[in-house]
Amino acid sequence: MKLLYPTTLKLDPALLAGFPTLTLHPYDAKAPMIPTDLLDAQILVTWCNSPANLSFAAQNLPQLKWIQSLAAGPNDVLAAGFDTSRVAVTTGSGLHDRTVAEHALGLLLNAARRFYEMRDFQNEGKWPGHLGGPQPDREPGTFRTLRDARVLIWGYGNIAKCLTPHLVGLGATVRGVARRAGVRGGVEVFAEDKLAELLPETDALVMILPGDASTRHALNKERLRLLPKHAWVVNVGRGSSVDEDALFEALEKEEIGGAALDVFEQEPLPEGHKLYRAKNLILSPHAAGGRPQGSEALIVDNMRRFLAGQQMRNIISKL
Amino acid sequence: MKLLYPTTLKLDPALLAGFPTLTLHPYDAKAPMIPTDLLDAQILVTWCNSPANLSFAAQNLPQLKWIQSLAAGPNDVLAAGFDTSRVAVTTGSGLHDRTVAEHALGLLLNAARRFYEMRDFQNEGKWPGHLGGPQPDREPGTFRTLRDARVLIWGYGNIAKCLTPHLVGLGATVRGVARRAGVRGGVEVFAEDKLAELLPETDALVMILPGDASTRHALNKERLRLLPKHAWVVNVGRGSSVDEDALFEALEKEEIGGAALDVFEQEPLPEGHKLYRAKNLILSPHAAGGRPQGSEALIVDNMRRFLAGQQMRNIISKL
Repeated sequence: MKLLYPTTLKLDPALLAGFPTLTLHPYDAKAPMIPTDLLDAQILVTWCNSPANLSFAAQNLPQLKWIQSLAAGPNDVLAAGFDTSRVAVTTGSGLHDRTVAEHALGLLLNAARRFYEMRDFQNEGKWPGHLGGPQPDREPGTFRTLRDARVLIWGYGNIAKCLTPHLVGLGATVRGVARRAGVRGGVEVFAEDKLAELLPETDALVMILPGDASTRHALNKERLRLLPKHAWVVNVGRGSSVDEDALFEALEKEEIGGAALDVFEQEPLPEGHKLYRAKNLILSPHAAGGRPQGSEALIVDNMRRFLAGQQMRNIISKL
Repeated sequence: MKLLYPTTLKLDPALLAGFPTLTLHPYDAKAPMIPTDLLDAQILVTWCNSPANLSFAAQNLPQLKWIQSLAAGPNDVLAAGFDTSRVAVTTGSGLHDRTVAEHALGLLLNAARRFYEMRDFQNEGKWPGHLGGPQPDREPGTFRTLRDARVLIWGYGNIAKCLTPHLVGLGATVRGVARRAGVRGGVEVFAEDKLAELLPETDALVMILPGDASTRHALNKERLRLLPKHAWVVNVGRGSSVDEDALFEALEKEEIGGAALDVFEQEPLPEGHKLYRAKNLILSPHAAGGRPQGSEALIVDNMRRFLAGQQMRNIISKL
């Protein structure tokens, strides 16, 4: 039984060994085709494959039974035309938790500590004195530190769980929003019908929503209006979850404190797009993740489950 | 017995109450003089006093017995001419740990995640694509994440102890350098004679040294040369501890990865100074601290000790 693994990232095949009925074969995920001698593969691991490569795989791997994507949201695989009635798809959910959480923490501190504004002064050869020296301590109606800040994480999944302890350690109060309400790891998670009460009590809103039809423009004009004037929006989920026109307007009118965006409705954001110059906007080029951590362990766990005929982890399309 | 507290920061006098023999009096620490009816004060709390105010106090408070500065390093008080043979001076050490640690963490993430470089692209209306998308994972010879990063904290005191758990939580390995070697809170702290071995094994050097004669240009040309080419220097201590000319040269020649400086030999850094335009330099305008946390509790604890004739906390000049 052949497993194909991509050369688009460093994987250690030794860490995938130990299954006598499996053979492991590297392949070029950017190539338009997969070599003839690999077309009888039953398992395909994907990471940053070219659309042509995926499309070729969808049509030319007749024995394919399982695709292990290393992306958290494998929209590329789902759009490539695989017959999901006979091919299982599992995601890389969990492989990006730590990297995305670290980036989100960095963006929150960039916002609170005004590093972006300091940079602009530095580039002009000027000392941003108003941002340094003696400062008021936790003035109400400001977001200048995570200490005692009220952070709301919308899309309270793996990444949020990984981010929360860092925020709590810095003194923030964290609440979550998700499809289902409940208490997760000590954090109170509310359903979306509570947003109207939660948003006005938020100093920083961290969005980690997936990019599907149900989340499109989840943060719209009406919800932006519910945020306090000093509140920041950080988006490390998917760009489609924010109505960018409404956000731009809120930034320009200073109806919110600012926004730190790692994701956009269109990526790359076209040169000269108005968001580049929006007031108090921090732009990050979809850089939060992009470095799956512990891929081999996930692949191996799912290989064992696959061979044992058990339910695989992160499955979104079943056999 | 009169205690004078400054109006340069918000202090809650109710939190200082409960000592029947003491009366509490606010005063303007920026004013050139202290009102006549307060000149019999025995206790003076200082925060961002003007030099004139301190100089006046040094000469016109004949009954003064104790100065509680809220600064971590009260160089201003020590330089004002108080007779320290009869006036005790206690510092605000500890009041700035959390704010400075948060800022240092933010600067480290700014460096690792290249927010400063993203900002420059944003300001030109361009997408910094090379900093986003799929990225190599923890490549040797890079500082792109705190995960598995080797952080060396030079000046391992209160602030370092407060910073360390945040770094460890993100996956960094932390070691310290201080006058005395030892293990502090699980962190191995080395004496300065081990720097030649430690610096070459460092991805990020965080400097939290005080600003006295013994630390002047502690980070000099020779020590900068010991750092790996990708290593970053973060300074949230005092500017005098870094030889800025040597640092500028190391940055320009790309002998180190970059530097994030919150403190400078001269502050404000003069307009047009070469450091503004140094390669991979992140400038922050002495903004790490400046917001003492829990001042009342320190004052009260020391008031009790003072009235009981006991050793005060943070004492640097004894009765």
